[in-house]
Amino acid sequence: MEVEIPEPQRVNLDARKTAVIVVDMQNDFADPKGSLFVKTAPDTIPAISRVLEKAREAGVKIIYTQDWHSGDDPEFKIWGVHALAGTWGAEVVDALKPREDDIIVKKLRYDAFYGTSLEHILRLHKIENLVVTGTVANICVLHTAGSAALRWFNVVVPVDCISAITEFDYKAALRQITFLYRGTLTKSDLISFT
Amino acid sequence: MEVEIPEPQRVNLDARKTAVIVVDMQNDFADPKGSLFVKTAPDTIPAISRVLEKAREAGVKIIYTQDWHSGDDPEFKIWGVHALAGTWGAEVVDALKPREDDIIVKKLRYDAFYGTSLEHILRLHKIENLVVTGTVANICVLHTAGSAALRWFNVVVPVDCISAITEFDYKAALRQITFLYRGTLTKSDLISFT
Amino acid sequence: MEVEIPEPQRVNLDARKTAVIVVDMQNDFADPKGSLFVKTAPDTIPAISRVLEKAREAGVKIIYTQDWHSGDDPEFKIWGVHALAGTWGAEVVDALKPREDDIIVKKLRYDAFYGTSLEHILRLHKIENLVVTGTVANICVLHTAGSAALRWFNVVVPVDCISAITEFDYKAALRQITFLYRGTLTKSDLISFT
Amino acid sequence: MEVEIPEPQRVNLDARKTAVIVVDMQNDFADPKGSLFVKTAPDTIPAISRVLEKAREAGVKIIYTQDWHSGDDPEFKIWGVHALAGTWGAEVVDALKPREDDIIVKKLRYDAFYGTSLEHILRLHKIENLVVTGTVANICVLHTAGSAALRWFNVVVPVDCISAITEFDYKAALRQITFLYRGTLTKSDLISFT
Repeated sequence: MEVEIPEPQRVNLDARKTAVIVVDMQNDFADPKGSLFVKTAPDTIPAISRVLEKAREAGVKIIYTQDWHSGDDPEFKIWGVHALAGTWGAEVVDALKPREDDIIVKKLRYDAFYGTSLEHILRLHKIENLVVTGTVANICVLHTAGSAALRWFNVVVPVDCISAITEFDYKAALRQITFLYRGTLTKSDLISFT
Repeated sequence: MEVEIPEPQRVNLDARKTAVIVVDMQNDFADPKGSLFVKTAPDTIPAISRVLEKAREAGVKIIYTQDWHSGDDPEFKIWGVHALAGTWGAEVVDALKPREDDIIVKKLRYDAFYGTSLEHILRLHKIENLVVTGTVANICVLHTAGSAALRWFNVVVPVDCISAITEFDYKAALRQITFLYRGTLTKSDLISFT
Repeated sequence: MEVEIPEPQRVNLDARKTAVIVVDMQNDFADPKGSLFVKTAPDTIPAISRVLEKAREAGVKIIYTQDWHSGDDPEFKIWGVHALAGTWGAEVVDALKPREDDIIVKKLRYDAFYGTSLEHILRLHKIENLVVTGTVANICVLHTAGSAALRWFNVVVPVDCISAITEFDYKAALRQITFLYRGTLTKSDLISFT
Repeated sequence: MEVEIPEPQRVNLDARKTAVIVVDMQNDFADPKGSLFVKTAPDTIPAISRVLEKAREAGVKIIYTQDWHSGDDPEFKIWGVHALAGTWGAEVVDALKPREDDIIVKKLRYDAFYGTSLEHILRLHKIENLVVTGTVANICVLHTAGSAALRWFNVVVPVDCISAITEFDYKAALRQITFLYRGTLTKSDLISFT
């Protein structure tokens, strides 16, 4: 069973119309001691850092999402306890700590647009391009990319900045992002902002 | 690259709390003369009919979605012209024609919950289970199943009632539905309503 | 009990960034034979026509809303049967008939943004200003103006183009539109588009 | 200019299907030192406390909203700086401090349903009745009551638990709540939960 995924491309984005979103890079997903650790997530940290550094330098808006659950969240029946509000597991990993000016979006479900102010914030800042990074590729990353694309935001995904549990899931995410949403695949060293 | 999909199960659903949704079984997708014909879609028509017949007999609510685009829709840059409002291509295939009492939801994008009254309607009828059928499995079917699951509707998918363009896409849809949404897979002859 | 309402002002709007919305000018609300006839609604028809004529001439996008209910709609417990899907009462009054290129938004509740594609459509056309006309001033007009304002659309209301059942309701609508939403009041002969 | 408002009624609500929402009782609105102090808001604190006490005793879900703005929020052009994220002005007044188990909903705009998880949370807890208290009666209280009513939640408002800047605004809020939303007016000593 094969699937063809387009090659990552060199991409230059208008800094004033672009936001970078870092999805769920929280201890529970991206730290080996986390309750739902994604093995390949730590490998994406240097790449995400590289993108954030370039973005900050160009004045690009940075948005972080945090999965944020109360103790009785029904998602725990699916995934076990994770990203419990106010705990270490729900914090963004130290290596990617948000800065004062960054925007934090707390969310209850996979999609960062669902039950949050994310769309409102993007419209307010006249954002047109959304660079999506983080984890899990076929879960919260894909849902967020999809909801952005449905609203006609231009979706850009650096392939070394997202991580999944299986190779199939990773490929499925890229397939959906490129085939359905016409998102652009790039890499952390192929993306720039001016 | 492998993925394991759970086997379809025998399912019996409470008729008063269940709706069946038929996603985009329109001429443009499910008729060989349609502009975006999905080759495997006609094969699902007998199975969908079987589910609808059982559902109607038990008084289950039936909902149809129709992709419904105006002439300048930006989706046409992705897919070419399809499901143009008021044309033959946008009509539901004859073999699955909605009845007077069925609910029609017209939509602009993949997700039947986005920019429509679908959630409002489901809440009004105190629906808890959504049986999702139609096409395309990894596009409008998956988006609709996902948005239902995010809202904690119980998602049930008869595997012989959905169709995709490639085997990978079909499997990816089933993987997301079962792994992320904990949807239940069934078949048209394994589902019943009481 | 008094309230001060700002005077209508001369307004000129950028035609490419503006849409005019005609809310619920349907037979049931605006025709004397309608089931929920608003006595002052017919008086607004010439003023709305004047705005539409100027808008069309300048190429401004025109949007009509239609309340559109199925036979078992719970709103009927509040208002009695009205705007029943497919009936004469649900049609826009003859004097304001939509043209081919106009956009029709069917809605189940007071707010034209709720359960509809209205926001999607406005974003697609890069609309920034929404001129709100129609009836009932403190019901569907106010809800629509409010939801537009919450999303930071610039709301403009020609005071001779909206109608209410009581003077209090009419004033309350204008008070909310100006005080909460900082909407601009104008009149059909004070508004222009270039 | 007159308006008739129905009398407050004795109301008993099913504790398991009811939530009480305390809208924006933050220092900036309800403390004399607050930047947007509503003069009549302190008078409602004892009444809101009474409702909360009865609600907590019966195990009713309590939800607090907090207006929560970043430094560049465009609302500041309308109202001046208020409810700035993380400041004293954005905290709930001491006399009504949320408890550990209460739900906090932070919001960017008047409507507590807009850009928040409020609807998701209410659905999760199978809430049918929403008791709305807080300030400002015709702004955030009315918007929240209206969005609840549009979704067919049963809206209940204790008239001594809401406050407005002018008598007109207070009456307009009650008029909309009763006439449009068929909300039930009650008082803090006429409401009970079992």
